[in-house]
Amino acid sequence: MAGRSESELKDITLLGNQGTKYLFEYTPDVLETFDNKHANRDYFVKFNCPEFTSLCPMTGQPDFATIYISYIPDVKMVESKSLKLYLFSFRNHGDFHEDCMNIIMNDLIELMDPRYIEVWGKFTPRGGISIDPYTNYGKPGTKYEKMAEHRLMNHDLYPEKVDNR
Amino acid sequence: MAGRSESELKDITLLGNQGTKYLFEYTPDVLETFDNKHANRDYFVKFNCPEFTSLCPMTGQPDFATIYISYIPDVKMVESKSLKLYLFSFRNHGDFHEDCMNIIMNDLIELMDPRYIEVWGKFTPRGGISIDPYTNYGKPGTKYEKMAEHRLMNHDLYPEKVDNR
Amino acid sequence: MAGRSESELKDITLLGNQGTKYLFEYTPDVLETFDNKHANRDYFVKFNCPEFTSLCPMTGQPDFATIYISYIPDVKMVESKSLKLYLFSFRNHGDFHEDCMNIIMNDLIELMDPRYIEVWGKFTPRGGISIDPYTNYGKPGTKYEKMAEHRLMNHDLYPEKVDNR
Amino acid sequence: MAGRSESELKDITLLGNQGTKYLFEYTPDVLETFDNKHANRDYFVKFNCPEFTSLCPMTGQPDFATIYISYIPDVKMVESKSLKLYLFSFRNHGDFHEDCMNIIMNDLIELMDPRYIEVWGKFTPRGGISIDPYTNYGKPGTKYEKMAEHRLMNHDLYPEKVDNR
Amino acid sequence: MAGRSESELKDITLLGNQGTKYLFEYTPDVLETFDNKHANRDYFVKFNCPEFTSLCPMTGQPDFATIYISYIPDVKMVESKSLKLYLFSFRNHGDFHEDCMNIIMNDLIELMDPRYIEVWGKFTPRGGISIDPYTNYGKPGTKYEKMAEHRLMNHDLYPEKVDNR
Amino acid sequence: MAGRSESELKDITLLGNQGTKYLFEYTPDVLETFDNKHANRDYFVKFNCPEFTSLCPMTGQPDFATIYISYIPDVKMVESKSLKLYLFSFRNHGDFHEDCMNIIMNDLIELMDPRYIEVWGKFTPRGGISIDPYTNYGKPGTKYEKMAEHRLMNHDLYPEKVDNR
Amino acid sequence: MAGRSESELKDITLLGNQGTKYLFEYTPDVLETFDNKHANRDYFVKFNCPEFTSLCPMTGQPDFATIYISYIPDVKMVESKSLKLYLFSFRNHGDFHEDCMNIIMNDLIELMDPRYIEVWGKFTPRGGISIDPYTNYGKPGTKYEKMAEHRLMNHDLYPEKVDNR
Amino acid sequence: MAGRSESELKDITLLGNQGTKYLFEYTPDVLETFDNKHANRDYFVKFNCPEFTSLCPMTGQPDFATIYISYIPDVKMVESKSLKLYLFSFRNHGDFHEDCMNIIMNDLIELMDPRYIEVWGKFTPRGGISIDPYTNYGKPGTKYEKMAEHRLMNHDLYPEKVDNR
Amino acid sequence: MAGRSESELKDITLLGNQGTKYLFEYTPDVLETFDNKHANRDYFVKFNCPEFTSLCPMTGQPDFATIYISYIPDVKMVESKSLKLYLFSFRNHGDFHEDCMNIIMNDLIELMDPRYIEVWGKFTPRGGISIDPYTNYGKPGTKYEKMAEHRLMNHDLYPEKVDNR
Amino acid sequence: MAGRSESELKDITLLGNQGTKYLFEYTPDVLETFDNKHANRDYFVKFNCPEFTSLCPMTGQPDFATIYISYIPDVKMVESKSLKLYLFSFRNHGDFHEDCMNIIMNDLIELMDPRYIEVWGKFTPRGGISIDPYTNYGKPGTKYEKMAEHRLMNHDLYPEKVDNR
Ligand SMILES: [Ca+2]
Ligand SMILES: [Ca+2]
Ligand SMILES: [Ca+2]
Ligand SMILES: [Ca+2]
Ligand SMILES: [Ca+2]
Ligand SMILES: [Ca+2]
Ligand SMILES: [Ca+2]
Ligand SMILES: [Ca+2]
Ligand SMILES: [Ca+2]
Ligand SMILES: [Ca+2]
Ligand SMILES: [Ca+2]
Ligand SMILES: [Ca+2]
Ligand SMILES: [Ca+2]
Ligand SMILES: [Ca+2]
Ligand SMILES: [Ca+2]
Ligand SMILES: [Ca+2]
Repeated sequence: MAGRSESELKDITLLGNQGTKYLFEYTPDVLETFDNKHANRDYFVKFNCPEFTSLCPMTGQPDFATIYISYIPDVKMVESKSLKLYLFSFRNHGDFHEDCMNIIMNDLIELMDPRYIEVWGKFTPRGGISIDPYTNYGKPGTKYEKMAEHRLMNHDLYPEKVDNR
Repeated sequence: MAGRSESELKDITLLGNQGTKYLFEYTPDVLETFDNKHANRDYFVKFNCPEFTSLCPMTGQPDFATIYISYIPDVKMVESKSLKLYLFSFRNHGDFHEDCMNIIMNDLIELMDPRYIEVWGKFTPRGGISIDPYTNYGKPGTKYEKMAEHRLMNHDLYPEKVDNR
Repeated sequence: MAGRSESELKDITLLGNQGTKYLFEYTPDVLETFDNKHANRDYFVKFNCPEFTSLCPMTGQPDFATIYISYIPDVKMVESKSLKLYLFSFRNHGDFHEDCMNIIMNDLIELMDPRYIEVWGKFTPRGGISIDPYTNYGKPGTKYEKMAEHRLMNHDLYPEKVDNR
Repeated sequence: MAGRSESELKDITLLGNQGTKYLFEYTPDVLETFDNKHANRDYFVKFNCPEFTSLCPMTGQPDFATIYISYIPDVKMVESKSLKLYLFSFRNHGDFHEDCMNIIMNDLIELMDPRYIEVWGKFTPRGGISIDPYTNYGKPGTKYEKMAEHRLMNHDLYPEKVDNR
Repeated sequence: MAGRSESELKDITLLGNQGTKYLFEYTPDVLETFDNKHANRDYFVKFNCPEFTSLCPMTGQPDFATIYISYIPDVKMVESKSLKLYLFSFRNHGDFHEDCMNIIMNDLIELMDPRYIEVWGKFTPRGGISIDPYTNYGKPGTKYEKMAEHRLMNHDLYPEKVDNR
Repeated sequence: MAGRSESELKDITLLGNQGTKYLFEYTPDVLETFDNKHANRDYFVKFNCPEFTSLCPMTGQPDFATIYISYIPDVKMVESKSLKLYLFSFRNHGDFHEDCMNIIMNDLIELMDPRYIEVWGKFTPRGGISIDPYTNYGKPGTKYEKMAEHRLMNHDLYPEKVDNR
Repeated sequence: MAGRSESELKDITLLGNQGTKYLFEYTPDVLETFDNKHANRDYFVKFNCPEFTSLCPMTGQPDFATIYISYIPDVKMVESKSLKLYLFSFRNHGDFHEDCMNIIMNDLIELMDPRYIEVWGKFTPRGGISIDPYTNYGKPGTKYEKMAEHRLMNHDLYPEKVDNR
Repeated sequence: MAGRSESELKDITLLGNQGTKYLFEYTPDVLETFDNKHANRDYFVKFNCPEFTSLCPMTGQPDFATIYISYIPDVKMVESKSLKLYLFSFRNHGDFHEDCMNIIMNDLIELMDPRYIEVWGKFTPRGGISIDPYTNYGKPGTKYEKMAEHRLMNHDLYPEKVDNR
Repeated sequence: MAGRSESELKDITLLGNQGTKYLFEYTPDVLETFDNKHANRDYFVKFNCPEFTSLCPMTGQPDFATIYISYIPDVKMVESKSLKLYLFSFRNHGDFHEDCMNIIMNDLIELMDPRYIEVWGKFTPRGGISIDPYTNYGKPGTKYEKMAEHRLMNHDLYPEKVDNR
Repeated sequence: MAGRSESELKDITLLGNQGTKYLFEYTPDVLETFDNKHANRDYFVKFNCPEFTSLCPMTGQPDFATIYISYIPDVKMVESKSLKLYLFSFRNHGDFHEDCMNIIMNDLIELMDPRYIEVWGKFTPRGGISIDPYTNYGKPGTKYEKMAEHRLMNHDLYPEKVDNR
């Protein structure tokens, strides 16, 4: 027996759907949402996404990253299979690492209007150097805006050990 | 010689009991408590629960998670064998990851009326993405409510490395 | 040449003593102290104790834990061999995990009257769940009392990964 | 463009199929195969399966394991989604750890008639002890039978570090 | 539904039994067996036992170890709860590390008459040095005797890193 | 000053070349070689390739793997930048994991005619299970053919720990 | 299709350029920038650089370090290939570890005029001791200056474990 | 070409000096300094020192530790080879762990008059318990004094896992 | 109750003895033995010794190593406290790493006349390079001599990762 | 007191010498030896060298590697400081990874005429792929030649996990 009724699940068209189409050009329209049943409370949802790949906008060479997305939902929550399809849609799209992370956050803000959100990408190295962009956002004029500033100020005081192996 | 007298242990019916029944449909009634002997002091108790499994509410597919539950007791404390049976009761129950974590916290608040509590689930991936919901609570109108807000604001600034292997 | 004179060491009867008796029933009297030579300064001393074992008060089954004890000394400091003997004295004693940690902290407060102290036990699992109690204390009416509250509020935001293996 | 033609994929009914039914009683019939296109060569295929769960046959308590299955195919190869469904079918089935591993290997031998196969289960502890059964098989009267004996003789000379945390 | 019938489980008196008595003096009689249902095949069963403790025979000080026991069953298999009780029975018994490991192996040979068995203890250090005894056995006059010699000859070519922390 | 003369490097057209084209359909022709200067000796060259991605031939969903390629060169050696381009050419190509690994090995045998070669792919999970194919080859009728058989027989006796996180 | 237009990329002369010259004497002029397209937002970019080497100014012996550079861009952002060339230009240059880290930060401030920046070097040991300098900067008279002070005050409360192996 | 001129290096007598004498009795006079060229800025220098050894003042038994020293320089900076010789001078000196750490910090304050300094020793266990003293200091009457208090209050909220192996 | 009788322990003078003298010049005479009670069987005893320190014979600088000693006893076994004192006796003794390991093995052969023994030292680096000597021995004219040759031939095919941190 | 007499050390000119010159063009002449005092015995010496750097022969870009060198000495042994200087002499020299490893082994064979030797380089990635060459040698016509063949045949059955981070 499921905790969600059929009507609560009616907007979800991709999860459990056989005929999934995988799009490899940037397609923000594929994102879907469902309703937050615990909106009385602030809580975090984190997505760990180690299968992100895009292209270098200058050379066309493939890039690879693990992306961590964390947010506090307001009314809408992003459905995870649609998020997967959205991230796959960067596959043959070219952009700088720093731009990709900001675009992903912009699209999710547009989709869900969350209270708070942050996106962190950790890319594999090129020429011995790897790049890890981190961006965040709190709803303007709320305590979540202050939260974003606080988390940025304390961001990554302990960079993970990286030796390129 | 035990530090707890028999009368202090009299409400515990499951720990050490041979005829334990394992229920696999959501059963919050199985939870039991004992008294906090150190209520003069704020202190934390954490449960590490790496054997959580439930079902996807749309597809019926099994999901797996490690759950971390931490709380500051007030008068009542949850007995750990009853907690085990309660978590096992999600075995054949279907719900979204985000809903499960909030339901578990709601049930433990109802049971113990703790000063503070938090619940963090770390699920295995589906389609390359894993989801980690985190929710917390402090008794309204007390310093523990502020504590909950403080801990949420500082939650998970260092996401663990996830590579799906 | 030793940095401590003989007179500074005269209260220590167990360290370096051949006829050590190992007691396996709870014996707080075995604890000994020496003087703090740097009381002008606040500093931490931590004991890592991975060889703690006690009994379950209901079933008599042995329990195992690693205990971390950290404190800021005032006038007296606990001598480490006597601490070892004290912890060994829980060997055949039965008590709940949560009670053991509070009792150990109470005994060390009684012994040393420290400025600040905290005790964290990390037990091995029973039935798939492990329990980690954490308790702390700052001398009432001093800044150390606030320190205790601050450290509790920030306690264990990153639970270690536990998979029972 | 796919490397396998439609006719090569025609026996696969579960992969990519929307209406998947999840069975939670032992169901070896769910297993499916496809043809080995490289039968001229000996090579290994390994499945890592960290989401195995079954029940204790005496107490009904859930058990959890990671299972490693490695085989050298002959004519038939097991399709991985059907393997997933097969392993999920132990969910509400009770058996000893040692029996489960042998049953899984027997079923896969029956299904594929492989040249060589081995199955290793690593379970979570009960009462402080965990159990890891390992069983293997080489086609009788072939060099693969000797291979099985050789691999058993050299099995697990370096047990992984286990501390139940 | 369990894979073992009631008659197959009838000799097991401890597993699932409420009134378990924990004995802390060396008691090999507590060991129990059940029948091997796959005796047509050689396979390994390994027990990981990180909760072993005994006493030093000269000083009475507690010792701690993780023990790894691996065997190939013949007709009889040791039941794991009885093994747990047996290992707990060393709790207040004094013996050298090297002697303990040989005694445990002797008792299990006596109990099960296995085809092959090995026992490896990894103790915590005293005075900066830790001791790891390893002993094994194959049924005399069989290929398992040669197997024991082979495994001893290849034992622990890669000692784990030990830094006493 | 370089250890290789210009004439020794003359067949290499991709390394250091600005106008690199990245092809995303299977293109074995892109592979290039240079001469082995130490052919008097057997030695290994290993490529670690954690950026492999291809598509599922049934669903079109992207797959991800780390590939390990090891070989003993004879006269020709594969140039690493051309190997990178070759592996990138699987990006929009669909095939089973087991087929991809055999195809890669076939192409490298065709290219270099090596004394010995092996290819091991470790994929990320789908539905909780990950697949790791391993295939190898020794020049027929030489000692390297026996080497291939020896290495297969001893392959992966210690599967890495996989928990899908 | 790339997310950056040609005009947005026109100042980048090194990325994708075939005739790259590697300079091994300190050359800050090699650094290049591109425009920040998300200047409305504070966000972090981190470079992980494990391939840094310079010389000891007294003995001429090579030194090795991993450098972590994190900054919040204002109008300009450093292009990563030019950063690589800049760091390589320390190869045959002699300076103390502490001086190198400050010089790198000075040059990047001069180049980009960032809102905030920090540079952390972790060197390999000489004579059993390794040195890790950390320096940071926030634009004077802004909140980023306070951010620098805050991050310094909380810097490296958990030094990584170092055992020189 | 070195970044430091000869005159800036003239006070350094030990680095690069052939006739180094190793002293094994406590000798603070061996410490040397050089000038801070970046005194306009607050920055950290950390020394990782895993080769510290001294003697127990009661038993004469050798003790071993890894020491972490971090400081913010003012005018003077300690030269690392002289620091090495200073730490080696504890080799045959006896003192309690807690005293050694305070003595080292006192000597470095006397030598450099730093803005801030902290010293953390992590010793190997005796009798199953290891001791880790941590002490710090900020110049009295400055913001660095508050920094010391802040860092002490937040010290070691996450004790490293210690299992004595 | 101890498993060894008093008469079996009568030759042990150091274990449990209060007045232990720590000698810091090479003193092989301090080694003591006890009798092997399981001489009917070949088994291994390993000592993990992470607290070894000696001096460089040319410069007098202290060296540090972790030593692993493994042996198959014949009639005599080395007592571990005496081994500790023996290893401490290298503290102020100068010798090359390679010589130290061979000397330790020679002394233990002289003491115990073991069936087989091996000694492996892993030193900390000097100038960026660390040295790990490994030496072994089997009683001449026995199968243990062949065992030594076999283990040398298979020694350390997987060197541990070393990055000097 | 040193275990080596002055006459035994007379050929060593670099160790402990102040005026060390660091050469950055390939210079095999810098290598020095000392006599093996344990030539009656086969034993291994391993050098761990994580600070190797050279240049790409086509592009001039710096490469970085950790090199592991293991050998069984005959009459002569390589002195470690001279080995350090030799490896540093590749700093501004260009060659393929595979060539560097073979050249280093050739030079050490020329220098020492060892019974057995092997050299393994593990490089950092370029373009997402890293290369690890391994070469070995046994004195022709001796059992060490067979040893080389045996070790090559069993080389690296377990490639380390590489994810380029
Ligand atoms: Ca790494
Ligand atoms: Ca899936
Ligand atoms: Ca992982
Ligand atoms: Ca674990
Ligand atoms: Ca249990
Ligand atoms: Ca563990
Ligand atoms: Ca001791
Ligand atoms: Ca360790
Ligand atoms: Ca994992
Ligand atoms: Ca290390
Ligand atoms: Ca001790
Ligand atoms: Ca450890
Ligand atoms: Ca040095
Ligand atoms: Ca390391
Ligand atoms: Ca590159
Ligand atoms: Ca890695």
